[in-house]
Amino acid sequence: MVSQDSYVIGVDYGTLSGRAVVVRVSDGAELASAVVEYPHAVVERSLPGSSDRLPPEWALQIPEDYRQVLKQAVPAAIAQAGIDPVDVKAIATDFTACTMVPTTHDGTPLCELPQWTQEPHAFVKLWRHHAAQPQAERINDLAKARKESWLPRYGGLISSEWEFAKGLQLLEEAPEVYAAMDHWVEAADWIVWQLTGSYVRNACTAGYKGILQDGSYPSVEFLEALNPAFGRFVVDKLDHPIGALGDVAGHLSAEAAEWTGLPQGIPVAVGNVDAHVTAPAAKAVHPGQMVAIMGTSTCHVMSSAELREVPGMCGVVDGGIIPGLYGYEAGQSGVGDIFGWFIKNSVPASYHEQAAKQGLGIHEYLTSLAETQNIGEHGLIALDWHSGNRSVLVDHELSGVVVGQTLATRPEDGYRALLEATAFGARVIVETFNTAGVPVTEFIVAGGLMKNQLLMQIYADVLNLPLSTIGSTQGPALGSAIHAAVAAGLYPDIMAASEAMGSVNKAVVVPIEENVKAYNALFAEYSLLHDYFGRGANEVMHRLKAIAREAQATASLKTEVNA
Amino acid sequence: MVSQDSYVIGVDYGTLSGRAVVVRVSDGAELASAVVEYPHAVVERSLPGSSDRLPPEWALQIPEDYRQVLKQAVPAAIAQAGIDPVDVKAIATDFTACTMVPTTHDGTPLCELPQWTQEPHAFVKLWRHHAAQPQAERINDLAKARKESWLPRYGGLISSEWEFAKGLQLLEEAPEVYAAMDHWVEAADWIVWQLTGSYVRNACTAGYKGILQDGSYPSVEFLEALNPAFGRFVVDKLDHPIGALGDVAGHLSAEAAEWTGLPQGIPVAVGNVDAHVTAPAAKAVHPGQMVAIMGTSTCHVMSSAELREVPGMCGVVDGGIIPGLYGYEAGQSGVGDIFGWFIKNSVPASYHEQAAKQGLGIHEYLTSLAETQNIGEHGLIALDWHSGNRSVLVDHELSGVVVGQTLATRPEDGYRALLEATAFGARVIVETFNTAGVPVTEFIVAGGLMKNQLLMQIYADVLNLPLSTIGSTQGPALGSAIHAAVAAGLYPDIMAASEAMGSVNKAVVVPIEENVKAYNALFAEYSLLHDYFGRGANEVMHRLKAIAREAQATASLKTEVNA
Repeated sequence: MVSQDSYVIGVDYGTLSGRAVVVRVSDGAELASAVVEYPHAVVERSLPGSSDRLPPEWALQIPEDYRQVLKQAVPAAIAQAGIDPVDVKAIATDFTACTMVPTTHDGTPLCELPQWTQEPHAFVKLWRHHAAQPQAERINDLAKARKESWLPRYGGLISSEWEFAKGLQLLEEAPEVYAAMDHWVEAADWIVWQLTGSYVRNACTAGYKGILQDGSYPSVEFLEALNPAFGRFVVDKLDHPIGALGDVAGHLSAEAAEWTGLPQGIPVAVGNVDAHVTAPAAKAVHPGQMVAIMGTSTCHVMSSAELREVPGMCGVVDGGIIPGLYGYEAGQSGVGDIFGWFIKNSVPASYHEQAAKQGLGIHEYLTSLAETQNIGEHGLIALDWHSGNRSVLVDHELSGVVVGQTLATRPEDGYRALLEATAFGARVIVETFNTAGVPVTEFIVAGGLMKNQLLMQIYADVLNLPLSTIGSTQGPALGSAIHAAVAAGLYPDIMAASEAMGSVNKAVVVPIEENVKAYNALFAEYSLLHDYFGRGANEVMHRLKAIAREAQATASLKTEVNA
Repeated sequence: MVSQDSYVIGVDYGTLSGRAVVVRVSDGAELASAVVEYPHAVVERSLPGSSDRLPPEWALQIPEDYRQVLKQAVPAAIAQAGIDPVDVKAIATDFTACTMVPTTHDGTPLCELPQWTQEPHAFVKLWRHHAAQPQAERINDLAKARKESWLPRYGGLISSEWEFAKGLQLLEEAPEVYAAMDHWVEAADWIVWQLTGSYVRNACTAGYKGILQDGSYPSVEFLEALNPAFGRFVVDKLDHPIGALGDVAGHLSAEAAEWTGLPQGIPVAVGNVDAHVTAPAAKAVHPGQMVAIMGTSTCHVMSSAELREVPGMCGVVDGGIIPGLYGYEAGQSGVGDIFGWFIKNSVPASYHEQAAKQGLGIHEYLTSLAETQNIGEHGLIALDWHSGNRSVLVDHELSGVVVGQTLATRPEDGYRALLEATAFGARVIVETFNTAGVPVTEFIVAGGLMKNQLLMQIYADVLNLPLSTIGSTQGPALGSAIHAAVAAGLYPDIMAASEAMGSVNKAVVVPIEENVKAYNALFAEYSLLHDYFGRGANEVMHRLKAIAREAQATASLKTEVNA
């Protein structure tokens, strides 16, 4: 029995802010939380103190911003909770990924050395830094050509966001920074290093982002074939002892104890990723329980006892979510951001006026119009590929489609068709997992979109699965707190801690039989178009993107000539 | 040489108003014009003096509204021109088609008889009365099954708008009205009958809308197979001596002279259709000169010495535009109305604000943004089938498509893609004519859309043809005036009158070589999608319409149950 007076801290590092939550160990109650917005947010135009423009697709961050979360949010959350800090038994963190910090041997970010304060490559490369695309393409081409055994573990595609592509870009564009770097560190591990003074590489990012499979990284021969100077990348910069999730990475240092106001020496858990750590927060730690973190995009995570190659998944990693199980990750590149794009670009003024008159947000207003429709009444089918398609087609050159527009098609029709399209996209993923021998038996939703009742009903009907929703609005931080409790030895493992501290509302939305039938007919149409546009029958989307790039390049050229 | 002091009157009957124009015979100068809006516009909800709802898809008009144009617009135009009415040598009219009037033996519309004032079937059925769709389908199915030789003359499809479908609906839904009807008269001929007191059936509508081919109508056997009571439809209701275009139909009656203020006894030309009569107004009377009347939809008319079966055309009629040549008609069901639909439904408030700030209309503002783009820069391909597709697919169950949307797609991108889609649709028509042995050598634009410079350049580039534009803003009325001059014997034929009185700006927009090349690549993509969605590879659009109809029916049922 856990004492009523034991607490843990979970800290969730997002893209724009970090949030600390105080959680009671016995039942997972969230006593208080505090947020710190990163002072520099995302650095995309120019480095602080500089007016030099960064190239396109760059996205950097400032490590000191992360420390500010420890220094401000943790004490604020404790103060607000009104607890005695000595009752805090452990702390754990989760982070965006793959977000990479180049450091010296002691973990000092290179950008904090006086000689590198104006060197972009010395800074943190945020997950959505996409400037390593050329390197990613070379990695993929070579891996395909060499039939590297690890490639299918990533659904056939290594992302430009991940450790190798970003590392290769660093080597090729700033060899002197690369040479000066002792470690190429996931921010998820760097923040733990800051807390403990020692570096442990977590099993989650090492697997999903670092291509660690069956104990090995890509070979020296493979890396040399990419670039002779890259051959020792793993040995010199990346390789490091791995920590299992929920294990103790180290103990709170005197310095970090001073920052946070927490007792020196308490356990600090191994680092983790925001999406993956949400699974235990939603009590989704058993095989078949798929958690969908639905926001601007959707990340799907699920554990299984089986190792299978699921076509188009983002990755499968031994112990990637829960030690002892294979953790699967899949993703839809665009979900909420597609709805947002529609709202911004395709909704006339009269709708905004009407929404305001009714005291509704524009999403709510469109939803109120869309939800009165019968299924199929709008006559539309859309493909949800406005940001490309990660799972299961793994093709970022795909794009969105709407079929069925008439002069009677209204904004709420297009909006509903997009909601449905993302549900169809989710069904393709679920069916692909089922077919691959990793069956999905429960669908648990976390993230901001779970508030949309219509969307939830559509997902339940399209998937023909009852939908559960996470009980916490701070899923990742709660998940980190669960990890902390395990690291503190207050529960024997993540499963037990999740059972006690996690929170889920079971089957809050259930499929309606006649809706399921109606959506089966529309999903058949979606599938036909999905395969036609996505599996090579008509590569019009690839050609349109190539044409557009060329046309834009000509346009830029014209502009430069005129300037 | 024609005297400087001879004038003719052209009267153009549109969907919502009638316009009279005073034209100088010697050079076609338009001296003055006057418009009368029909007091009852289009009767779609209930008859005047009644609150009974008309069924869906009905569209009626009131004959007296047409007379008001003669009584008001003609005298007003003459007064404004400041001419002496005795110098008016003839009058001619054009009308929407197929717009049908059921009359007694003397031309009295049945709705003007006391017993029929509340009988919808006794009124004028406007061209866009679409409630005879079931009858049209039976006509087409039977004609296909019997391999009727006239069917290919209409691209394989008889429209629900035309004389036979509307006539069969009248018989089947109101047999007593059908029995009381002596003549089933095109409004184009009825208005001439009003002017002259005698009934002449014009060659244009008899051919295009009345299935008169090689001197014969559909056979009694065919009509009996549709409905035994319909067997004598041609003999009893339709057949009547045909007048060639430009011929004299009769002379102005005393009554009509009083209405119009014109001299009694002047020639009145045989009736005509607004689109077809535009050809001589645009000096497009020779083989290969295609006139596109571009408005909410586009109608294409062209003459040729050759009789060919062009797949998907609306019709080919001997003397249908110019006596002695075969007149071809094709059509795009949606053009300007697709742009209008986009503006109404897909343009955010900020664009309207920006347009207002710059003192531009919203179409102009979007055009100003779209025209700065390089071809293909937006990455989109659209299919312009929001109103279905007449030529060349002849399928009203098709619908609109957009392929290539991303989160970076802006309203001006979608707008431009729709402009281009209609140009691609026009190119399909032109290429089909070329392939069928009726080559298009010149493309002449009339109608409201010719004002849009960007649209015109896109058409020139997509078609790789120089674009000419009609010189008159009142094309149909000028065309009627030309017919009037021929009827008056002031020119030997329509060609000569068109040469002297017509007006065209030759090759005002010419294709730009690099644009032509760029559009060839995009047209290849359009063609692929056109054939995939339009020629049976994936009949998703048909299925979506069927699903939508069923869902809407269920919705209506629900509403009725709730009501």
